[in-house]
Amino acid sequence: MDDIKAGIQYAFQTQNRLTLAISGTGHCAMEAALINLLEGNDTMLVGTNGIWGQRAADIARRLGAKVHELLKPPGEYFTLQDIQEGLAQHKPSMLFITHGESSTGVLQPLEGLGELCHRHGCLLLVDAVASLGGAPILMDQQGIDVLYTGSQKALSAPPGSSPISFSERAREKMLRRKTRPPSFYLDMDCLASYWGCSGEPRMYHHTVPISGIFCLREALAILAEQGLENSWEQHQAVCTRLCQGLQDLGLELFVKEEAVRLPTVTTVRVPEGYNWKEITAFLMDKHSIEISGGLGPTAGKVLRIGLMGYNATQDNVDRLLRALRDALQHCQHSRL
Amino acid sequence: MDDIKAGIQYAFQTQNRLTLAISGTGHCAMEAALINLLEGNDTMLVGTNGIWGQRAADIARRLGAKVHELLKPPGEYFTLQDIQEGLAQHKPSMLFITHGESSTGVLQPLEGLGELCHRHGCLLLVDAVASLGGAPILMDQQGIDVLYTGSQKALSAPPGSSPISFSERAREKMLRRKTRPPSFYLDMDCLASYWGCSGEPRMYHHTVPISGIFCLREALAILAEQGLENSWEQHQAVCTRLCQGLQDLGLELFVKEEAVRLPTVTTVRVPEGYNWKEITAFLMDKHSIEISGGLGPTAGKVLRIGLMGYNATQDNVDRLLRALRDALQHCQHSRL
Repeated sequence: MDDIKAGIQYAFQTQNRLTLAISGTGHCAMEAALINLLEGNDTMLVGTNGIWGQRAADIARRLGAKVHELLKPPGEYFTLQDIQEGLAQHKPSMLFITHGESSTGVLQPLEGLGELCHRHGCLLLVDAVASLGGAPILMDQQGIDVLYTGSQKALSAPPGSSPISFSERAREKMLRRKTRPPSFYLDMDCLASYWGCSGEPRMYHHTVPISGIFCLREALAILAEQGLENSWEQHQAVCTRLCQGLQDLGLELFVKEEAVRLPTVTTVRVPEGYNWKEITAFLMDKHSIEISGGLGPTAGKVLRIGLMGYNATQDNVDRLLRALRDALQHCQHSRL
Repeated sequence: MDDIKAGIQYAFQTQNRLTLAISGTGHCAMEAALINLLEGNDTMLVGTNGIWGQRAADIARRLGAKVHELLKPPGEYFTLQDIQEGLAQHKPSMLFITHGESSTGVLQPLEGLGELCHRHGCLLLVDAVASLGGAPILMDQQGIDVLYTGSQKALSAPPGSSPISFSERAREKMLRRKTRPPSFYLDMDCLASYWGCSGEPRMYHHTVPISGIFCLREALAILAEQGLENSWEQHQAVCTRLCQGLQDLGLELFVKEEAVRLPTVTTVRVPEGYNWKEITAFLMDKHSIEISGGLGPTAGKVLRIGLMGYNATQDNVDRLLRALRDALQHCQHSRL
């Protein structure tokens, strides 16, 4: 458990002592963040430009918090100006934003966001499920108060345990709670003790998914061995090659601005005259490659191609592009 | 997922269509049951004779429900008379009881309990984390409304996914909810759709712990192949041999009445003049066998020996008894 804690601290670039893995998949980490940091009298501002903002808003409303959503069309990101207006208008105690919007393929810029939030007395909560290891994120330097990811994305471990970390500012807010979180399984006070983050002797809390925890330890070790910078570069190079290849096939990328394309998940518009389901089915049947359609607000509009961690190689890009060329020929032919 | 559903239906002896695996360990299944079935205006009666009743009461209170605890000393069980008095006095909408009280080694009799609860307009929620597969439980015949277990006990799969099932009566109570459950991850309405229990097309909800789910499928298949009755008999035979052996060593069983001893976890009093930690440490160091001390109300009072699933063999009993004889000699010697 101490190795995992150190591995997450490295992957997140943080010194936070409240750093551990949640015993559940990415959604469970999202809930852990919200359940521990929100009470009925809290206001949360949510940046919604895809499914994950919608999801966080849904959970926060279940918890009785007041929720305001900053809306952007799928494929777009939030500027500091957008956020500043939202903070000034709604005076939230926490801002939720998605670093890697895997339903739309957008990478949200984080520079200056932490400072801006703190100037408004607001915590910054960042969802990095789809981006961690694939794009730079520097928790302490960027002033992020809560950060979580999943084990099965760029970390390439099986799903089932989810790294999470809390800043001192976030810890202090939890200490000031007037009510207990409506979950024992995700109660950060108990988890801090179980994971040895509280300075006190460890207390039994629940059984962790032990096999998954060992896998996570190895995945974090592999990332540390490769080096974060190398991992970021690898994902960026693979994404660049993929985007070029897609455009060479005559396809249109969903995210226009190159700098805000998520390196781990690339979205491309479903081309005119094609049914996206025929393309994904063809790729699976004939090439044993799984790509997916849109999700939430992008359903029916895009194809999503995930290349992350172990899978993020130039060879896989080339293999996919060949298969996709084949699919574009056959799926169009079948409709004539 | 359909195989797992069928496997759980067999293991639980139920036809309930709302049968699936929660993406978390046993505590998470306990929360799933309580989060979906309790609202702020509900009253729950909890049979507390060990740590699991305390835990359920804790979670229910976090959810804002009114909680009454029926208390029994650790090592004892509840009679129908005890329960009836509690139901008449508190008029709860749900009763929580632990079938396999692994902190004390008690197996709670379930006969007649469902009928009694239903006569009082109360749902019966049973925790079978430590007992399922090790002792008879017949969900439909015994009128149990919610039943859950863990994957890593008698099922011998890795921890991380937890079978759960809801009766039609329990489903109807969930349908009558006035508020949404304070969890998205454990919302049974969404999970029913994800697991194909609702009759509608499946909807993406969250990523399940995929590797663990495949393991659970195999574990349920192994149980079906062995046969429930054979599994119950195997655990009972192993427990009987262990209990006899422990008494032959001069040790005192914590649960007096043979019929209510939990076959999967046997509790024995820490013998006079010994420190339990020395015994468990000796067994681990010299014999590579892990047994544990008490938990919650039995901490410091008992040693707990788990023999379940793959580990429940006569050979393991004999190996443990030899090691324990050795420990009793050495740990006493070391204090002279």
